[in-house]
Amino acid sequence: MSGVNGLSDRTRAKWAGAVDPEEIAKTLPRMLDLTTENITENVVKINSLCKDPRLRYLITKLVKALHDYARDVNLQFDEWEKAWQFLTEVGQISTDVRHEFVLLSDILGLSALVDSLSYPTVPGATESSVLGPFHDEEAHSLELGGSITAEGTPGEPTLVRGVISDTDGKTVSRALVDVWETDGNGVYDVEYEVKEEPNCRGKVFTDDQGNYVFRCVKPVAYPISNDGPVGELLRTLNRHWFRPAHMHFMIAHPEYTKLITALYSRDSNYVETDTVFGVKQSLIVDYNWCEDLELAKKYDLEPMVRTIDGKEHKGFWLLEKDFVLIKKSPPAPRKVRDD
Amino acid sequence: MSGVNGLSDRTRAKWAGAVDPEEIAKTLPRMLDLTTENITENVVKINSLCKDPRLRYLITKLVKALHDYARDVNLQFDEWEKAWQFLTEVGQISTDVRHEFVLLSDILGLSALVDSLSYPTVPGATESSVLGPFHDEEAHSLELGGSITAEGTPGEPTLVRGVISDTDGKTVSRALVDVWETDGNGVYDVEYEVKEEPNCRGKVFTDDQGNYVFRCVKPVAYPISNDGPVGELLRTLNRHWFRPAHMHFMIAHPEYTKLITALYSRDSNYVETDTVFGVKQSLIVDYNWCEDLELAKKYDLEPMVRTIDGKEHKGFWLLEKDFVLIKKSPPAPRKVRDD
Repeated sequence: MSGVNGLSDRTRAKWAGAVDPEEIAKTLPRMLDLTTENITENVVKINSLCKDPRLRYLITKLVKALHDYARDVNLQFDEWEKAWQFLTEVGQISTDVRHEFVLLSDILGLSALVDSLSYPTVPGATESSVLGPFHDEEAHSLELGGSITAEGTPGEPTLVRGVISDTDGKTVSRALVDVWETDGNGVYDVEYEVKEEPNCRGKVFTDDQGNYVFRCVKPVAYPISNDGPVGELLRTLNRHWFRPAHMHFMIAHPEYTKLITALYSRDSNYVETDTVFGVKQSLIVDYNWCEDLELAKKYDLEPMVRTIDGKEHKGFWLLEKDFVLIKKSPPAPRKVRDD
Repeated sequence: MSGVNGLSDRTRAKWAGAVDPEEIAKTLPRMLDLTTENITENVVKINSLCKDPRLRYLITKLVKALHDYARDVNLQFDEWEKAWQFLTEVGQISTDVRHEFVLLSDILGLSALVDSLSYPTVPGATESSVLGPFHDEEAHSLELGGSITAEGTPGEPTLVRGVISDTDGKTVSRALVDVWETDGNGVYDVEYEVKEEPNCRGKVFTDDQGNYVFRCVKPVAYPISNDGPVGELLRTLNRHWFRPAHMHFMIAHPEYTKLITALYSRDSNYVETDTVFGVKQSLIVDYNWCEDLELAKKYDLEPMVRTIDGKEHKGFWLLEKDFVLIKKSPPAPRKVRDD
């Protein structure tokens, strides 16, 4: 026991004086005997004291949506209990690098929807795609042409390059290209039980002509994390939990809207049934087999041997993809009421 | 790195062979270029493989409700990001005895609504009220007349007694009365930084005539836990976070529907503005001042001294409340489709 009146100091410090609860209580309607019919309007009223108009709008609509849902399906106590226990597990398995709520949002299609709402397609610009749960700020910075994969990473050698420009056709220099992918086993660095250095992720800046280039491994299709509550949910739903092979890109420059997208491999399984609904036709790319060993040498890329028609060929995969950014514009006002 | 292909054994063991993802993928519609308009129907289709009709219904309606909400408010990426970070925090502050998601559900009125949907009022029976986040199975079992509070617990001495019967007027013997409350400082045992034995909670069985009786302290109004993300939300919403003084009851017997309810003190602040929307008129009770020292002695209750009209009086608080249970009936079929 510690603190005033036995309440822990931490708890007490936070609530004391922040607002005067008796003053607030006076401004509220009398709320007794709330029923399934009148509870929603009362919860909306109690939340109407919020001073931020956008948050007030978001929370008002959320309460209505949640309550309408519960009434509509006639949600029962044991189901509600399972739901909050599930959400607790989702939070508890999360770490700095494992974002299980993002995964949950992903498999419910909410991430893809929010992506579409936030970044509507602009003619000529590269389309966006879902962020996914595995972005990590702690990636290494690379020189142009450097490798995002550590020595000995499983996977087939790949060179990725292209030009970043804007919708006016102007190339963008000093754009930050932040890229992340699975290794050749379909596993992100943070999924391994022991993670040493960041791997299969890196940041590189475009040069004066807007060029980027880096080395990596060819990504493969993989199961999303399914050793947690979201995996259990997918199993119960009888859904598959695979994503097609892809490489994530986050491209940032002070003058442009940040582009969060991913490139999907045409030759991969699940391109048409991605369990997180991220694939767009314009983001499907080809990894071309390349035997230009001069190019490999230039980028210090160790070629692999591939048997084609019974003959051994030395080479690597080449992915060439340009990105088109959108100039930043003042943020549009956000909806704060229904029209 | 461990396990097949470097995937952790735990992850691999769980997904291998559970379902055949390629078989499942074949049964799905082609899902590419999902837009804000067509994503919902596609997510519904992918979930339609679920074999449990109630879960399929719940998840289908949930996806629709979530997506409709996001479209309606035009949910933006940064707001979505704050939301999943918030939910992660709610999970992470939770423990075996602190159920922050229950608290979140409580302050959004969802708990009260689910309570009403699950336990509709039955004429003559005691009304239900919200469970709250502080029920703990680990309470001590008491003899009839025993105390739920440990020696030295702050608070005013109180005796609670009554009869448990059913809607036919038949008394119910061997009903388990599980009760929990704050101490006189408005703090639950599990909220203290150091929790030793369970305190201010206990379980007692009714006798052959349906009587229950126990000693406790008079509960007081208190702030709900607000040192976590739900507290931050309440602060941002400019809401107060007080509950009126109350005592929780969970009454169970194999032949009756479990009653989860609470008794609210008429003399308490916030009876009309309970931040979790739990108060019903029929659950408001009076603690009567009692100077029957024989009764106190019978139950080994240490009286307190109270000054009334300048004169010292020795006595204690007496709460008398009967409960009426509902006979168990076969569970009604749950909704699995819209009519």
